[in-house]
Amino acid sequence: MMDERRSAAATFTTSEREAVYKAIFARRDVRRFVSAPVPTEAVERILLAAHHAPSVGFMQPWNFIVIRDPHTKTSIKQAFLSARAQEAERFFDDRKKLYLSLKLEGIEEAPVNICVTCDSKRHGPAVLGRSLNPQTDIYSTCCAIQNLWLAARAEGLGVGWVSILSEKRLKEILLIPDHIAVVGYLCVGYPQRFESKPELETVGWLDRLPLRDVVFDETWDGIVAGD
Amino acid sequence: MMDERRSAAATFTTSEREAVYKAIFARRDVRRFVSAPVPTEAVERILLAAHHAPSVGFMQPWNFIVIRDPHTKTSIKQAFLSARAQEAERFFDDRKKLYLSLKLEGIEEAPVNICVTCDSKRHGPAVLGRSLNPQTDIYSTCCAIQNLWLAARAEGLGVGWVSILSEKRLKEILLIPDHIAVVGYLCVGYPQRFESKPELETVGWLDRLPLRDVVFDETWDGIVAGD
Repeated sequence: MMDERRSAAATFTTSEREAVYKAIFARRDVRRFVSAPVPTEAVERILLAAHHAPSVGFMQPWNFIVIRDPHTKTSIKQAFLSARAQEAERFFDDRKKLYLSLKLEGIEEAPVNICVTCDSKRHGPAVLGRSLNPQTDIYSTCCAIQNLWLAARAEGLGVGWVSILSEKRLKEILLIPDHIAVVGYLCVGYPQRFESKPELETVGWLDRLPLRDVVFDETWDGIVAGD
Repeated sequence: MMDERRSAAATFTTSEREAVYKAIFARRDVRRFVSAPVPTEAVERILLAAHHAPSVGFMQPWNFIVIRDPHTKTSIKQAFLSARAQEAERFFDDRKKLYLSLKLEGIEEAPVNICVTCDSKRHGPAVLGRSLNPQTDIYSTCCAIQNLWLAARAEGLGVGWVSILSEKRLKEILLIPDHIAVVGYLCVGYPQRFESKPELETVGWLDRLPLRDVVFDETWDGIVAGD
């Protein structure tokens, strides 16, 4: 039994394992890019990494629209500015000032933008593992984005996920059909630098929670049935 | 400019980069486990990896319920069997036979099960980046699952995501409050082996799509506006 375990574990060396953790811990949401171009081969490698994400019933529901056209980026940037103005109204006083001072995207500076979508109708109505929760195809698409993000980090590329965008506007600009969901809009390029902490932590927006606060034993909050 | 780019890229060596891709390409959905126990420290490392996922507005909306109790696993297995019987009705003839022949979970065999949840109410009603799409907290939780999955692969641990489960039943068994969403139910343990391909590809359920079929230039399907 232990031999079986060792043989499985042996497939990654200690330094390979450390490299995987390094990508996970050093990954950042990047909003400040240098203008150096991103080689096509690097874009292809990170897209291939995304395409090797797990997917419910192996449906691979994702598409990736790779955008380099400055006119398109300008339209998306305008869409971001409208969305940000709308969201800013949800914060007040100092919090609103801080919100508006944050750099929350690098749409125009990033040489490459990638819009990640999900096609719920791929492979017909019955998908293995999706009948109890139809949202699982969206979950798969998020796993693909995280694969892309980690691969990019290992390539020295920064990725910033812009979530302050109207899906409706994005679909108009990128000519995306109605039945397709937009899951993520990513800015990709070489970063000015990789920060040691998330920017929202550095500026005091929110703190990182202690791990022990988010892990429970056996049941929610360790509740014993009948308590 | 090129210097800046090189300095960012230099933070990963070629072999470190290859290790990250290795984890991404060699990750599998595992359903067959050996009974070797999983060290507590390895579970903590993969949970810490999950906790370092990106999250919208840095809200870290996830919780991880770590289950080792065989009685709980038996209840979950029963819930799976009911859900599978229900889903099987969506397939017909040979496809149904194939569906029922597949091993789709390793709930009882895996030494550790992890239920991953999302708390949409964490940090109050206004979350930076979430007002246009409230689902983004679920997206963050999926990124955490993918981090965990890749870290596990580097540890030689297999992970299987069981999506054929009723959220309602899971909440009853694990005493999860109403306002919390269950995003994933994971089986974790040392695998009998890591297969070279996804099982659903091997058995001919679906093929892997060519990457070029899922990547578009500039707009959906490369459509030119006005076409």
